[in-house]
Amino acid sequence: MSSYAIGVDLGGTNLRIAAVDEGGKLISKTALGTEVSRGREYVVDELCRATAEMIREMKEKSSGAELCGIGVGVPGLIDLESGLLVKSPNLPGWINYDVKGDIERRLGTAVILENDANVAALGEQWLGAGRNSESLCMYTLGTGVGGGLIVDGKLWRGWNGMAGELGHCNVEPEGHPCKCGSHGCLEQYASATAVVRMAREAVVSGVATELSKLAGNSDREFNSSVIYECAIGGDKAAQKVFERVGRALGLAIGSMVNAMNFPLHVIGGGVSSAWDAFAPAMFNEVRLRSYIYAETTAEDGKGIGGRQHTTVITRAQLGGDGGLYGAARLALMQWAAKQGANPAAKQKQ
Amino acid sequence: MSSYAIGVDLGGTNLRIAAVDEGGKLISKTALGTEVSRGREYVVDELCRATAEMIREMKEKSSGAELCGIGVGVPGLIDLESGLLVKSPNLPGWINYDVKGDIERRLGTAVILENDANVAALGEQWLGAGRNSESLCMYTLGTGVGGGLIVDGKLWRGWNGMAGELGHCNVEPEGHPCKCGSHGCLEQYASATAVVRMAREAVVSGVATELSKLAGNSDREFNSSVIYECAIGGDKAAQKVFERVGRALGLAIGSMVNAMNFPLHVIGGGVSSAWDAFAPAMFNEVRLRSYIYAETTAEDGKGIGGRQHTTVITRAQLGGDGGLYGAARLALMQWAAKQGANPAAKQKQ
Repeated sequence: MSSYAIGVDLGGTNLRIAAVDEGGKLISKTALGTEVSRGREYVVDELCRATAEMIREMKEKSSGAELCGIGVGVPGLIDLESGLLVKSPNLPGWINYDVKGDIERRLGTAVILENDANVAALGEQWLGAGRNSESLCMYTLGTGVGGGLIVDGKLWRGWNGMAGELGHCNVEPEGHPCKCGSHGCLEQYASATAVVRMAREAVVSGVATELSKLAGNSDREFNSSVIYECAIGGDKAAQKVFERVGRALGLAIGSMVNAMNFPLHVIGGGVSSAWDAFAPAMFNEVRLRSYIYAETTAEDGKGIGGRQHTTVITRAQLGGDGGLYGAARLALMQWAAKQGANPAAKQKQ
Repeated sequence: MSSYAIGVDLGGTNLRIAAVDEGGKLISKTALGTEVSRGREYVVDELCRATAEMIREMKEKSSGAELCGIGVGVPGLIDLESGLLVKSPNLPGWINYDVKGDIERRLGTAVILENDANVAALGEQWLGAGRNSESLCMYTLGTGVGGGLIVDGKLWRGWNGMAGELGHCNVEPEGHPCKCGSHGCLEQYASATAVVRMAREAVVSGVATELSKLAGNSDREFNSSVIYECAIGGDKAAQKVFERVGRALGLAIGSMVNAMNFPLHVIGGGVSSAWDAFAPAMFNEVRLRSYIYAETTAEDGKGIGGRQHTTVITRAQLGGDGGLYGAARLALMQWAAKQGANPAAKQKQ
């Protein structure tokens, strides 16, 4: 191993750190809790302490291995020009905070900060579902719905770094109110939060006997996983919840196919585990909403001109580690660019 | 002038041809009708005859000026790999037709074929509303709604050339049926056809006195222009029609801002002349649907960090000539690429 990078996944609940080499091999990994309540100083101290320890270990294990930098994925809005974390829903109080500069000063190593859904997309393109794709659109279905776009091998940030807010694409103009101020955003139908809300709505409506039992069971959290189990077990009300997830995703993806004609759409995040429950409705909806999709996904797998091409919609492959790999990748790419190499060419290694 | 290209706008009604130099100067222009009913052989014959005449004239006027190639913008689906015109709603019978090869054989000059909305976007980026923008998203509101995307200075075609079908992005899941098979596509609310349909719906509902008079007047065609005049004249029913145009556009653009964060959205095509009537509703809707737009369009024109940046939504500047310039541009770019120059760098000239 000649060089490696540190990838950090700094979430509202978990803080995970990994050392990944140029070839995408995971060399070391550690997981801590993010103790948000103790303040950002404390969290960044912990992050730096654990990272410094990992760098020390790496020196012992693989002497001569060069550290290229540290990539940090963080939920929230990052200003492209200043590099500041503008705000983060899961890291309250981290407003216009120079996370990058703060870590750089403490560790003396180049740091690159990026939105968590963006680094997850980068990870999937490097080592996961997007390995053979130059461009892709990734949806991350978690507490909210995030997104990341890879265009011609590079992360697409938009003009001020805010691209990929796929959770706020509209799927129902008069739909459920969203905290962003709009109504009927994708996030209101395809996030873990939305799954629980829609299941509770079914409980309140009185039609959902099984879901009512689960919701009333104080021994077990009423979350998207138990609702998924209920759906897989054959409960109609729970199945309907995931059909709504699928339809909303299908509407959003259909419009993206029509607009951008990306070859690949990757679905990750916790709710993507419920793939079996929402995917059939999703595929039906995309087929209905996008004649481009319908034309390029003939059952024989052959698109226009009979060539072996289709627009692909698939699950993420790296699970929760996509962001870790993507964050490390970002640092490796930045380092390669600084070496004077062509960053686009480096990305394709 | 050292070199120039021919741009052709091959529409279902008009056939226009122009000679444009490297600097974007229009040197010569001619307009013919497209006599679709006489068959594609006849139309291509006419196109080649008029083009050959223009090339002859150019030789006389500017001896030594080099012809770089011919760019042809055509409404319809073009297969990226084969270059065939797969199908065209306005050129019936032109199915899987090698327009490019046919013109090349007759004129002995390199031809490049591209979707008309794509070349219009390229024209606007070269010489119109997008002159200062590396990336943009253009909506063309005509009989239907087309779209074109410029990403980092280059036309974005998607993986098989079908990108930019913005007219089929969904704005109303249970809305008006679209010929594409879906319901509630943007095209069903923001095209000239949709304006007339919505006005007729108002007439049928009995609430639209002024529109009823216009619709019943056999001396004058009931089209989007007269409905616009009626709206500008103060008629509430006609104004409501254009408010629906604006809301639909705002919904579609809001989702594009959230997903792609393009710096610029350009609206062209015939219906864009009704800007005064639909723009206020459009801006309100984008502000509601996209917090990114709302955050980056403060009234003082300063976005995040107080910098002088906003997400811009504006009218096209080249009118009906955008496609003509864009088609010529495409030929100039292809020629530059073949000269061994870096095409991306050339595009930036």
